[in-house]
Amino acid sequence: MPQTKNIPLAQNEACPKEHPTSSDFRSRLPHIVDQVVDTCYNNACFEHVEAEPLPSRQHVIDILESCRDILFPGYFRNQGIDRVSLKYQLGLEISGLYEKLTREITNAIRHECLRHDTSCQHCEDAGKENAFSFINALPALRAILATDVRAAYEGDPAAGSFDEIIFSYPGIYAIMVYRVAHELYTLGVPILPRIMSEHAHTITGIDIHPGAAIGASFFIDHGTGVVIGQTSTIGQRVKLYQGVTLGALSFKRDDSGALDRQSKRHPTIEDDVTVYAGSTILGGDTIIGARSVIGGNTWLTQSVPPDTKVLLKSQELIMKSTQNQPVK
Amino acid sequence: MPQTKNIPLAQNEACPKEHPTSSDFRSRLPHIVDQVVDTCYNNACFEHVEAEPLPSRQHVIDILESCRDILFPGYFRNQGIDRVSLKYQLGLEISGLYEKLTREITNAIRHECLRHDTSCQHCEDAGKENAFSFINALPALRAILATDVRAAYEGDPAAGSFDEIIFSYPGIYAIMVYRVAHELYTLGVPILPRIMSEHAHTITGIDIHPGAAIGASFFIDHGTGVVIGQTSTIGQRVKLYQGVTLGALSFKRDDSGALDRQSKRHPTIEDDVTVYAGSTILGGDTIIGARSVIGGNTWLTQSVPPDTKVLLKSQELIMKSTQNQPVK
Amino acid sequence: MPQTKNIPLAQNEACPKEHPTSSDFRSRLPHIVDQVVDTCYNNACFEHVEAEPLPSRQHVIDILESCRDILFPGYFRNQGIDRVSLKYQLGLEISGLYEKLTREITNAIRHECLRHDTSCQHCEDAGKENAFSFINALPALRAILATDVRAAYEGDPAAGSFDEIIFSYPGIYAIMVYRVAHELYTLGVPILPRIMSEHAHTITGIDIHPGAAIGASFFIDHGTGVVIGQTSTIGQRVKLYQGVTLGALSFKRDDSGALDRQSKRHPTIEDDVTVYAGSTILGGDTIIGARSVIGGNTWLTQSVPPDTKVLLKSQELIMKSTQNQPVK
Amino acid sequence: MPQTKNIPLAQNEACPKEHPTSSDFRSRLPHIVDQVVDTCYNNACFEHVEAEPLPSRQHVIDILESCRDILFPGYFRNQGIDRVSLKYQLGLEISGLYEKLTREITNAIRHECLRHDTSCQHCEDAGKENAFSFINALPALRAILATDVRAAYEGDPAAGSFDEIIFSYPGIYAIMVYRVAHELYTLGVPILPRIMSEHAHTITGIDIHPGAAIGASFFIDHGTGVVIGQTSTIGQRVKLYQGVTLGALSFKRDDSGALDRQSKRHPTIEDDVTVYAGSTILGGDTIIGARSVIGGNTWLTQSVPPDTKVLLKSQELIMKSTQNQPVK
Amino acid sequence: MPQTKNIPLAQNEACPKEHPTSSDFRSRLPHIVDQVVDTCYNNACFEHVEAEPLPSRQHVIDILESCRDILFPGYFRNQGIDRVSLKYQLGLEISGLYEKLTREITNAIRHECLRHDTSCQHCEDAGKENAFSFINALPALRAILATDVRAAYEGDPAAGSFDEIIFSYPGIYAIMVYRVAHELYTLGVPILPRIMSEHAHTITGIDIHPGAAIGASFFIDHGTGVVIGQTSTIGQRVKLYQGVTLGALSFKRDDSGALDRQSKRHPTIEDDVTVYAGSTILGGDTIIGARSVIGGNTWLTQSVPPDTKVLLKSQELIMKSTQNQPVK
Amino acid sequence: MPQTKNIPLAQNEACPKEHPTSSDFRSRLPHIVDQVVDTCYNNACFEHVEAEPLPSRQHVIDILESCRDILFPGYFRNQGIDRVSLKYQLGLEISGLYEKLTREITNAIRHECLRHDTSCQHCEDAGKENAFSFINALPALRAILATDVRAAYEGDPAAGSFDEIIFSYPGIYAIMVYRVAHELYTLGVPILPRIMSEHAHTITGIDIHPGAAIGASFFIDHGTGVVIGQTSTIGQRVKLYQGVTLGALSFKRDDSGALDRQSKRHPTIEDDVTVYAGSTILGGDTIIGARSVIGGNTWLTQSVPPDTKVLLKSQELIMKSTQNQPVK
Repeated sequence: MPQTKNIPLAQNEACPKEHPTSSDFRSRLPHIVDQVVDTCYNNACFEHVEAEPLPSRQHVIDILESCRDILFPGYFRNQGIDRVSLKYQLGLEISGLYEKLTREITNAIRHECLRHDTSCQHCEDAGKENAFSFINALPALRAILATDVRAAYEGDPAAGSFDEIIFSYPGIYAIMVYRVAHELYTLGVPILPRIMSEHAHTITGIDIHPGAAIGASFFIDHGTGVVIGQTSTIGQRVKLYQGVTLGALSFKRDDSGALDRQSKRHPTIEDDVTVYAGSTILGGDTIIGARSVIGGNTWLTQSVPPDTKVLLKSQELIMKSTQNQPVK
Repeated sequence: MPQTKNIPLAQNEACPKEHPTSSDFRSRLPHIVDQVVDTCYNNACFEHVEAEPLPSRQHVIDILESCRDILFPGYFRNQGIDRVSLKYQLGLEISGLYEKLTREITNAIRHECLRHDTSCQHCEDAGKENAFSFINALPALRAILATDVRAAYEGDPAAGSFDEIIFSYPGIYAIMVYRVAHELYTLGVPILPRIMSEHAHTITGIDIHPGAAIGASFFIDHGTGVVIGQTSTIGQRVKLYQGVTLGALSFKRDDSGALDRQSKRHPTIEDDVTVYAGSTILGGDTIIGARSVIGGNTWLTQSVPPDTKVLLKSQELIMKSTQNQPVK
Repeated sequence: MPQTKNIPLAQNEACPKEHPTSSDFRSRLPHIVDQVVDTCYNNACFEHVEAEPLPSRQHVIDILESCRDILFPGYFRNQGIDRVSLKYQLGLEISGLYEKLTREITNAIRHECLRHDTSCQHCEDAGKENAFSFINALPALRAILATDVRAAYEGDPAAGSFDEIIFSYPGIYAIMVYRVAHELYTLGVPILPRIMSEHAHTITGIDIHPGAAIGASFFIDHGTGVVIGQTSTIGQRVKLYQGVTLGALSFKRDDSGALDRQSKRHPTIEDDVTVYAGSTILGGDTIIGARSVIGGNTWLTQSVPPDTKVLLKSQELIMKSTQNQPVK
Repeated sequence: MPQTKNIPLAQNEACPKEHPTSSDFRSRLPHIVDQVVDTCYNNACFEHVEAEPLPSRQHVIDILESCRDILFPGYFRNQGIDRVSLKYQLGLEISGLYEKLTREITNAIRHECLRHDTSCQHCEDAGKENAFSFINALPALRAILATDVRAAYEGDPAAGSFDEIIFSYPGIYAIMVYRVAHELYTLGVPILPRIMSEHAHTITGIDIHPGAAIGASFFIDHGTGVVIGQTSTIGQRVKLYQGVTLGALSFKRDDSGALDRQSKRHPTIEDDVTVYAGSTILGGDTIIGARSVIGGNTWLTQSVPPDTKVLLKSQELIMKSTQNQPVK
Repeated sequence: MPQTKNIPLAQNEACPKEHPTSSDFRSRLPHIVDQVVDTCYNNACFEHVEAEPLPSRQHVIDILESCRDILFPGYFRNQGIDRVSLKYQLGLEISGLYEKLTREITNAIRHECLRHDTSCQHCEDAGKENAFSFINALPALRAILATDVRAAYEGDPAAGSFDEIIFSYPGIYAIMVYRVAHELYTLGVPILPRIMSEHAHTITGIDIHPGAAIGASFFIDHGTGVVIGQTSTIGQRVKLYQGVTLGALSFKRDDSGALDRQSKRHPTIEDDVTVYAGSTILGGDTIIGARSVIGGNTWLTQSVPPDTKVLLKSQELIMKSTQNQPVK
Repeated sequence: MPQTKNIPLAQNEACPKEHPTSSDFRSRLPHIVDQVVDTCYNNACFEHVEAEPLPSRQHVIDILESCRDILFPGYFRNQGIDRVSLKYQLGLEISGLYEKLTREITNAIRHECLRHDTSCQHCEDAGKENAFSFINALPALRAILATDVRAAYEGDPAAGSFDEIIFSYPGIYAIMVYRVAHELYTLGVPILPRIMSEHAHTITGIDIHPGAAIGASFFIDHGTGVVIGQTSTIGQRVKLYQGVTLGALSFKRDDSGALDRQSKRHPTIEDDVTVYAGSTILGGDTIIGARSVIGGNTWLTQSVPPDTKVLLKSQELIMKSTQNQPVK
C-alpha cells in the first residue's frame, strides 16, 4: 500500500457540533441561481440569450460523420453494403445531409446577421444555396481524398493496406475534416468550419485552420502537435510529420491598435516538400521551395530555395558517465 | 491494388487435420477466469474490491458537462433558451449539480478514508459542504472565464467572434476544466480534480494540473502538448502557445528515498508574459518576470527579469541543394 | 460587442430576383448520388464494396473497453463488485470477449485473404484460435500492467494514489492498449492492432505502434506527442516524457523502388533509461545504453553507452530589455 | 420433448440442385422498390408525400409524458425533487412543453389546411395560441385529476394508498390522457387528441374518445375493454368497470349516403352512476339517471330513471354432473 | 391522508438483536445460482441452451417496424420524405429488411430442424428464399392495406381522416401485423409469425392468429378483446367490433389422446358481414352467410344464412328504485 | 380525397389584426408555473414532495426483466449462452437483482413508514432480508413456471412448441409476473407487487392481483380482459379463457363507513376447473368445485359442485332476413 500525499481532507477538521443539513444548503441555491442568471445579462461576452438558435456543435459533428460515411462508404457503418444497397444508402445519406446542412448553415448565417445588426432577409436562401454547393463538391472531395490515402500508403512503411489507413490514421481523418471545412469556409459559411476543424484537432491533435489552402496527395504522419495557420498555402504531394508548425511571425495591428485579421501571416510550402518532426516555419513571406526537405526540429523564419535540404547543424551535447553514481 | 506486407497469417499454416471447436475453447475459459480472479486478491495494486463504491469516472465527466452548461448557457444544449426558461434551466442544472457533486465527493473522500484506515465519520457531511462551496463559487468562475474568452479574442487574429471561441477553442475548454478542477482541489477534494484535468487533457492535448495557480485573462493558443505542472504559478493576462512546458527540474527525495510530493517544483510566470510554441521552462525557483516575451523553442532553467525579450540565437542550419539528385 | 471579420456572407449579395426552391435543389441530388456511386467502382483505393464484412471500428473499441474492464475490474463500470459478483462479472466479460474477438479477428483475416486473392479456408478456425490465445494471455497482461501502475506511482511526485493513476493517467491507458494490441500483433492478427493503437493515440496523444517491443514497469508522463515506431525495442523500467520520438532515420527502398516495410528502422532503449521531454532518437542501429538519462530537447541519431547522462549544451539565448517599449 | 406440429418447412423440399445466391435475390430488389414507390403516388389514400411535415406520433407521446410529469411531479422521474428544485423542474418542463406543443399543433393544423386546400396563413399563430391555452389549463387539470385519484381510493378496497393508484392504476392513466386530449379537442386541435387517446388505449385497453365529456371524480376499475364513444356525456362521481361500452346504436347517413359524423350517437350517464363489468349502453338518446346502478353484463338501449338498480334477471343455466366421464 | 391497509411490514417485527449483513446474504447467492443452473439441464422444457441462436424477439419487432415504415412511408419516421429521398429511403429499408428477414428466418428454421433432430442442410437457403418471397409480396400487401384503411374511414363516423386512422387506429395496426405474419405463415416460416401476432396483441388487445385467412377491406373498431382463431376464414368487407371471438367449440384429440392441431376448428365469416361487440361465434362448421349482421353479445355455435340479421332477444332486466335507500 | 369532418380549426377565425408573439406567451408562463407549484403543497393527495425517494416504476420494470432473464435464460437476451457462460450470466444477473431489489424494497418500505409516521429504524434491514428471501425462492419459481408452460402446450392446439409459448404467449408473461409479484406480496413488500401486476396488465390485458393464490399448471388462453381479484383462490391445472372475471359481489364497509379492505371478496376455483371466455364468477363464498367446466358468457354468483358442467341455456335469438333491403 503506497504512502500517499497528506491531502487536507475536510473530514480531518475538528468535528463540528452541528453540520448544516442538505435542506439548509439547498435553500441557499436559489440565491446562487439568481446571481448566475444576472451574469447572463450584465456580461457583454455571453450575449446570445433570447436570440435565434445558435448552430449546434452536436449537429455539426453529425454532419462530419455523415460526410465521412459518404466519402468512405462501408468503413464506418455496421451495415454491410452491396451493389444494390450502396446507391440507396448514399442517396439517403446525401439527401439527409442536404437537409442538415441547410439548417445549420442557416442558423450560422442568421446568428452572424443578428450580431452585425444587419437586416438581411436571405439567410434561409443562402443556407440552401451553400448546402447545395457543398453537396455538389462531394465527388471532387472523394477524388482528392483518394490521392491523400495513396500518399499515406506511399509515405509510410508501417502502412499495411489502404484499409488500415482509412480505418485508423489520424492524419487522414484530419485531412478529410479539413477538406470538408475548407469547402464551407470558401463558400463563406461562418462558425461551422472552425467547429469542424477544432473537432478534428480534439480527435487527432492536428490543428489545421479551415482557411489554409492545401493541394492533393497531402500526408501527415503521426500528427500530434501539427499546427497549420489560417493563411498557409501548401502545394501538392507535401509530407508533414508530428509537431510541425506553420505559424505567424507576429501580428499586425491597424492604426486603432486592433489586430489585422486579414493579411497573409503564415508560410507557403511548395509542391513535393517534406518537413520532419518538430520543425517550425513562420511568417507570411516565408516560402519553402519545391522538392525541399526540412530536417527535424528546425526553426525557419526565412525562405528556402527549391531543391534544398535543410538540416540542423549537429547539436552540441554534453555526455558524462554516471556509472557508480546515482542518476538524477 | 497495393502490394501489402507479408503478415504471417494463421491461415498460412499447413492445414491441421483437426481444429479444436468453439466448445473446446470455451470449456477452457473458466480456468482463465479463475486465474484473473486470483490476481484481484494477490496483487497489492488492485485493492479496492469489496470496498465502498469508487467515484465514477463517467459521473465526473457528467459533472463537467453540467458545469459547462452552467458557465456557458445555451452553447452546448440543443434546447433553445429564452429569458423565461433560462432561470429554470440554470436552476435545475445547479440543483442537480449539487446532488451529483455531493455524491461523488462523498465517494471520493470515503475512498481516501478507507485507504488511510482512518475512522472518520464525516465523509458525507464533508461531501455536502464541499459541494455547496463549489456551487457558491460558480458566479465567480463565470466572471473569470469571461476574462479568458476576451483574452482569446484579443490574442488571436483568426478568432471570428466570441461564439467561435466558446464553441470550438480547445484552450477555453482546458481553462474552464482547470478552473473547475482547481476549485475542488483547493477545497481538498481528492481524486476528482485529477480525473477532470486528465479528461480535458484527452480532449485538448493540454495538461494543466489542478494544483497550479493561474490568474485571469489566460490564453492558450492551439495548445497541443502544453504541460503546466502542479506547483506552477501564473499571473494575469499570460499567453501560452502549443508545446509549452512548465515543468520540474528534478525530483527531491526525502531521507527514506521517497519522493517529496509537496515542495514547489514548477516555475512562476508573472503578469502579461507571453511564451511562444515549444518552449520549456523548468524549476521551482525559476521566475519569468512581468511583461517578458519568451521566444519559441527555448529551454529555460533560470529566471528572467521583467520586461525582457528572450530569443533563441539563430540556429546554425546546413542547407545543401539537392537538384539533380534524388531527395532522401 | 467585438468588431468581427468581414466574412463574405452569401446574404450580402445583391438580392437576386428569384431563388431556387428546395425542390429545385433536391431534384438535382440524384445526379450527384450517381456520381459518388460511380467513384466507388472506378477508384482503385475504395475497393471493399460487395466484399465480406470489414472488421468494425466500433466493435474493436468495444473489445478494448471489455479488456479494460477485465484488466482493471471495478474502475470503469458503474456496477459495484464484491467477492461474489467479481467472478461472475469477469466470467461473463471474458466469455463475451472470446465471442467478440473471434468474430472480429475472423473478419479481419478474411478481409486480408480476399485482398490477396488467396483461397484459404481456415479464416474462421484462425479466428477462434487467435481469440483463445489472446484470452489465455490475460492473466499475464494483468501482471505486467501492475508493474506499469507501480512505475507511474514511483515516477511521478504528483501521483496521489494507485487509483488516481488507473482512473486518469493517459500514459497507463496508452500502455494498456499497447499491451493488448501487441499481443494480437504478435499472433499475426491484421488491421485490429493498428485500429486499437490509433484509438489510444486519439485519446492520449501517445502513438505507440503495436509492433514495438516494450518491457515491464514502463512509464510515460504527460505523454502528448510521444511517438514510438514499429520496430522500436524498449527494456524494463524505462521512463519517457511528453514529446519524445523514437523514429526512423530514413526509409529503405528495394530495387523496384518500393518501401522496405520489414527492416528495423527504430532505436533500441535498454533497461532503466529515462528520456526527458521533447527528445528525438532516430535510427534502427541507435542504442541507448542501460541506465542512461537523455536530457530534454535532444536530437540523437547515434548510440549512447550505458550509464551516460546526455544533456543539450546550454542554448545561446538573446535577452534584451523591452522596458519603455511596446512588446511585439 | 413435445411432439410438435408438422409445419411444412421449406427445408423439407426435395433438395434443389442450385439455389439462387444472395446476389441473385438482391439484384431483384430494385424492381420491388420501384413498385412500392409507384404505389405512393398512384394510391389516393397515402397522399402526404412531399407535403409539409406531419405531426410526429413520437413527439405526441413525448408531450403526454411531459404532461404526466407536470401533473404528477416526482412519480415518474428518477431525479428526486425537493422544494427548491420542484419549481425549476416544473418551470423547465412547462416551458419546454409550450415549445413542443406549439410545433406539433402547428404541424397538425397545417396538415389539415393543406388537405382542405384552404389558403390559411395563420397556422403558426393558431399553434402558439392553442399551446398557450392548453398550458393555461394545467392548474385546473391538476385539480380535477386529484378528484379522480381520490375517487379510485374511495372506490377500490384493494387500493393501498394514493401512491399505488398514481403509480400503477391503468384507469388513472387513461383518465389523465383523456383529460389532456379532451382539452386539445375542445380547442379544435386536429389529429393530436386522437393519437393521444389511442396511445392510452394501447397502454390500458381503455378506449375513451377525446370528444366525450366527463365530470370530476371519475373512476374506471380494471378497465380492459372499456369503450367510451365520441359524443358520450358522463357526470360526476361515475364509476365504470372493465368491459363497459358506451356506444352508438346505429349510424345516420345524410342524403348522399355519407356518414353523419356530427350528431350525438352515444349515451348520457348522470352523476353518481355505477356501471358494472361487461355492460353495454347504446344510443344518443339513452340517459342513465343519477345515482343508478347498472349490474354486470346488461345490454341497455333505453333510458333508466334516477335512483334505479338494474339487474340482469338470473340466467338460466344448465348444470350436469360429469363425474365418471371425461370432461370435454 | 388516507387510512391505509395494515400491510404486515417487515419492520413491524420485534427488533432483532443482530441482522445479517449484506455480505452474509451475498455469500449465499452462489448456492442459489447453482440451483438455477441445474434446472436448466434437468428440466425438459427449457432445452435450447448450447443450441444455435434462437430467433430474437427484439429483432422480430424491428422487422415489424421496418415493414410498417415500408407500408406506410412517412408516418412513423421523424425524417421528412420528399420525392427524391422516398426512393432511397424505401430502397434502403427494403434492402435492410431482406438481410434481417434472412437471418431471423434462418434462425427460426434451424431451431425447428434441431428440435426435430433432422439433418437438413438447407436452412440458410430456405431463409433467403422465404425472405425474398416475403419482400416480393410487399407491393400486394400495400394494396390490400389501402383497402383496409378505406374500410375504417367508411365504417367509423368518428374517423377524421385517413391520416388519423393510419396514425392511431389499433385495428389498422393489428391488421397490418396480421397480413405480414400471415404471409410468413403461408410460406411455412415457424415461430416468427406467432411472435409478431402476439406483439400486435400486446399493443392492441386484438389477437389474430396468423393462420387465419382474411379478405380485403377488413375493419375492426375499438378492438380490445377480439380473438380470431387459427383456422378462421373471413371474407371481404367484414366489420368486427370489440370483444368479438371467433373460436373453437371443442378440441379433437387423436387416438393417443394428443390434441389434433390441424383440423378446422374456427368459423367461416362470408363477405360483407358485420359482427357487433361482445359476440362469440364458435366451431369449424359454423358459417355466417354473406351480408348478415350479428348483434352484440350473441353466442353462436350454429350457421346463419346469408342476408340475416341476428339479434339477442331482449334481456329480461330487473329494475328497482333505490331512492331513499343506500345504493349497494 | 375523403370528405372530412368540419373541425372548427383556429385558423378559420376572422383574421385578427395582431397576434401575440411567442415572447408574449412565454412571459406569462412563470405565473402558471407558480400556480402548478402551489397545488403541490395545497393538495393533500400529492404529498410525497421533499420525502425520501419513492420506489421507481422504471426500476421495478427492470427488476421484472431481470427476473424474466433468470427464469427463462436465453430467450430474451441477444447474447447467446452456452454451458460456460450460462453460469456467469445467471450469477451476475442474480447478484445484480439482489442489489436492485434491496434498494427498491427499502425505498418502498421507507415510503410506507413515513406515510404512517412510524419511527421504524429497520427499513434497510428489511429490504435486504426480503430481497434475499425472494432470490432464495427463484429455483422454486422456475419449477412452477415450467408446469405453466407445459399446461399451455397441453391446452392449446395452436401451440407449435414450448419456445413459441415462452416467446410469445401473453398468458405465460402474465403468470410469470404474477408469481414474482405474489412472492413479494407474501413477504409483505408494499407498492412494488402492484406496480408489477399492473405492468403485466398493460402488456397482456390480463389483470391478476398479486394477492391471489394460484396453483401450478395454470393456463390462460388469449387472456385479454381477464380479471382475478385480490382474494381469489385458484387450484392446480386450472384453465381460463379471455374475458373471465373472478370478482367481488359487493364491498363491505365498517361501522365508520370505510371500505373493509381485508375480507375474502373473490371466489375459489378448485383443481382442474376450466372457465370459458367471458364468464364472470363473483363473491368470496362462491366455490367452483374440482374438475368442473364453466361454459362461456355465464354469470355465476353461487357455488358449483365438483365435476359439474355449467352451460348457458341457449340464448333466444331473433333472426330476420334482410335480403332485398339495406342492412342497418
